[in-house]
Amino acid sequence: MGESEAEGQATGTEGMARLAGFSDGVFAIAITLLILNIEVPESTASAAVAVAQVIREWPDVLSYVISFLVIGNYWIVHHSIFEDVDSYDRRFLWLNVVYLMFIAFIPFSTSLLGDVPGRFPVIVYAGTLTLTSIVLAVLWRYAWTYDLLDGTVDGEKVRDVTASILTPAVVFAGSILVSFVSAQLAMYSWVLLLFADSARERLLGGETARG
Amino acid sequence: MGESEAEGQATGTEGMARLAGFSDGVFAIAITLLILNIEVPESTASAAVAVAQVIREWPDVLSYVISFLVIGNYWIVHHSIFEDVDSYDRRFLWLNVVYLMFIAFIPFSTSLLGDVPGRFPVIVYAGTLTLTSIVLAVLWRYAWTYDLLDGTVDGEKVRDVTASILTPAVVFAGSILVSFVSAQLAMYSWVLLLFADSARERLLGGETARG
Amino acid sequence: MGESEAEGQATGTEGMARLAGFSDGVFAIAITLLILNIEVPESTASAAVAVAQVIREWPDVLSYVISFLVIGNYWIVHHSIFEDVDSYDRRFLWLNVVYLMFIAFIPFSTSLLGDVPGRFPVIVYAGTLTLTSIVLAVLWRYAWTYDLLDGTVDGEKVRDVTASILTPAVVFAGSILVSFVSAQLAMYSWVLLLFADSARERLLGGETARG
Amino acid sequence: MGESEAEGQATGTEGMARLAGFSDGVFAIAITLLILNIEVPESTASAAVAVAQVIREWPDVLSYVISFLVIGNYWIVHHSIFEDVDSYDRRFLWLNVVYLMFIAFIPFSTSLLGDVPGRFPVIVYAGTLTLTSIVLAVLWRYAWTYDLLDGTVDGEKVRDVTASILTPAVVFAGSILVSFVSAQLAMYSWVLLLFADSARERLLGGETARG
Repeated sequence: MGESEAEGQATGTEGMARLAGFSDGVFAIAITLLILNIEVPESTASAAVAVAQVIREWPDVLSYVISFLVIGNYWIVHHSIFEDVDSYDRRFLWLNVVYLMFIAFIPFSTSLLGDVPGRFPVIVYAGTLTLTSIVLAVLWRYAWTYDLLDGTVDGEKVRDVTASILTPAVVFAGSILVSFVSAQLAMYSWVLLLFADSARERLLGGETARG
Repeated sequence: MGESEAEGQATGTEGMARLAGFSDGVFAIAITLLILNIEVPESTASAAVAVAQVIREWPDVLSYVISFLVIGNYWIVHHSIFEDVDSYDRRFLWLNVVYLMFIAFIPFSTSLLGDVPGRFPVIVYAGTLTLTSIVLAVLWRYAWTYDLLDGTVDGEKVRDVTASILTPAVVFAGSILVSFVSAQLAMYSWVLLLFADSARERLLGGETARG
Repeated sequence: MGESEAEGQATGTEGMARLAGFSDGVFAIAITLLILNIEVPESTASAAVAVAQVIREWPDVLSYVISFLVIGNYWIVHHSIFEDVDSYDRRFLWLNVVYLMFIAFIPFSTSLLGDVPGRFPVIVYAGTLTLTSIVLAVLWRYAWTYDLLDGTVDGEKVRDVTASILTPAVVFAGSILVSFVSAQLAMYSWVLLLFADSARERLLGGETARG
Repeated sequence: MGESEAEGQATGTEGMARLAGFSDGVFAIAITLLILNIEVPESTASAAVAVAQVIREWPDVLSYVISFLVIGNYWIVHHSIFEDVDSYDRRFLWLNVVYLMFIAFIPFSTSLLGDVPGRFPVIVYAGTLTLTSIVLAVLWRYAWTYDLLDGTVDGEKVRDVTASILTPAVVFAGSILVSFVSAQLAMYSWVLLLFADSARERLLGGETARG
């Protein structure tokens, strides 16, 4: 499984499958842990108090939905990138671990967003996602530079995918600046991502049709 | 892995395996997190107090069993559906993420059910499961409409599976209405699902025998 | 993936792989959640207080080690059984879900064992494991009866494996009786499992050599 | 799946894939649980108090990063070793379970490191990692001794890999001694691992190039 080659590169279906499986495990756990941020009322509370408490937690529910879609999006992009990766080396594994470190950090940033008022949690959340996207772009460029991609990927696709990975980074980094004007406005600016995503889809779709 | 085709469709064993693997991860975590809803007594409590406390938690244990079987059922249906799915596109991935978002929400609804008295948790729980089933039906119809199923699936099977997916949605949505009469009665009505399941099995069994 | 056959049986490598993958996910999460039972001192405690508190938790550490080996053993047996399973039907999937429901319950029983004094947690723990083993034996017999095993498995192996699955059930059920004399003694009796395991290994080893 | 051989050895792609999948699950959960060590402020706290509290938690964030990289490294080494493992027997499975027991213990040691002052958590943390490395070395030597590795692995590679596995054990064991002088200094000594890793990479790289 995974035949070793000169210069430490490894290839082979099982090695790649295990790399993807470990990554998917981290994605699946991080995305499912999000639910733990929504607190359950004490079992001793009366029905009315409990209901009021759950309803007061709607920002937590909103954070859950946003972060589930955000991590889901990172998983889809990771999945899509890994369809083009044919082999890996030690440094690629390390970059992937660092990337997963940011993914696993998202549940913490999410719970700050639901629980702490003001600009600070917005900055932490947007900062986490900006860095996550940048690390993914580095991973992708690394795979291209060290010839880990399959033969059908050309320079144009590499540029398109890089652009689509970095678009959320630009939105989130921008929202950090906006948060100094208004934390609310910064959060609303994330809606731009919906258009960024459809823009990326068009780019990737066109690319795929060409490939 | 996963050859890209025109119009953004992807096929291939590994892409599908990774999609199933990520989904299974979320299912496995959501189903295993259920146990965290059953509280453990403080280690400083005396034996008698601790035993009394555990015994008072029998609704939590009951919720655990119900939700484990409910999520287990969703996994079995998802597994069964994915045996017919041959390829996927970006929108199918997104629908699957939204579906998993509802699956991962079930542990929260479950803990409400065990901890909060009255009609409210029954509505949240039944509402979550109604929506979960509806999203799964949408996922299934999407796969059929956009030709992601393998060639052996015909229109009759698609209708049968849709019906079997939506049967729990009908039971759970109905129990929301019943909860306005009595929360207890609404929970008892879920027992109907046992018959719904056996009905579905007969439908699917017949279908499979034909196929 | 997974070709459907008459009478609802499914076979095929990918269906089985996904069944095993979901089961492994539940095993992996249940076994890793065990660590959450060992409490971390408050970050405001002084070094001396924190150290004393951690040291007082040695029963939790012991519970962690015991339950990790117990769940590890169940995984090894499940893994070994599934090497002989070639296909599955709907009822087999359900039996496996029920089996996993008991596996996922073990972290709760474990935390009772570490935190609550007296006979009660011993009974819950031994009872959980007795039932877990019985459900696994039912799963195994079901696979044999409904012809889901591969052709190389004969009646003698089925009996040997059943015996080896039920040996821990006998030990744990016996320890429940012993706990009415002494909870301590009941826990010591679990050491018998070490010999039971080596006995099973010899049985399985001999079987494998014959096969 | 997994053909049984005389003397209880099993081989075959699916048995190995499941062994790797279960291990990856434990790795993925242990590494993602690390985030739970970073506490989220109470949702009732004011913004200023909450921010101050998060900033005071920087040792927890540092522990998160260190332990994520440490577990990530163990995963990479495990992954790399398993590329050379072709078959397994019952004892190999047990050694792997014991190894995973130490991996799953790391989140607890990590949270001690972030929350408890003084020498004690440093000793627990370094002790956990020393034992983890030793168990992995035993696993690797066992695979070599009982002929579970594929044919391309020679005695020189076995020695090189053993050395690279035990290098962190030496650093961590050494840091326990250093902690009796200064807990701070002991933690700084872990930076040596960065060089140990690059040293190992060179060793493995050379080995791979030869093979």
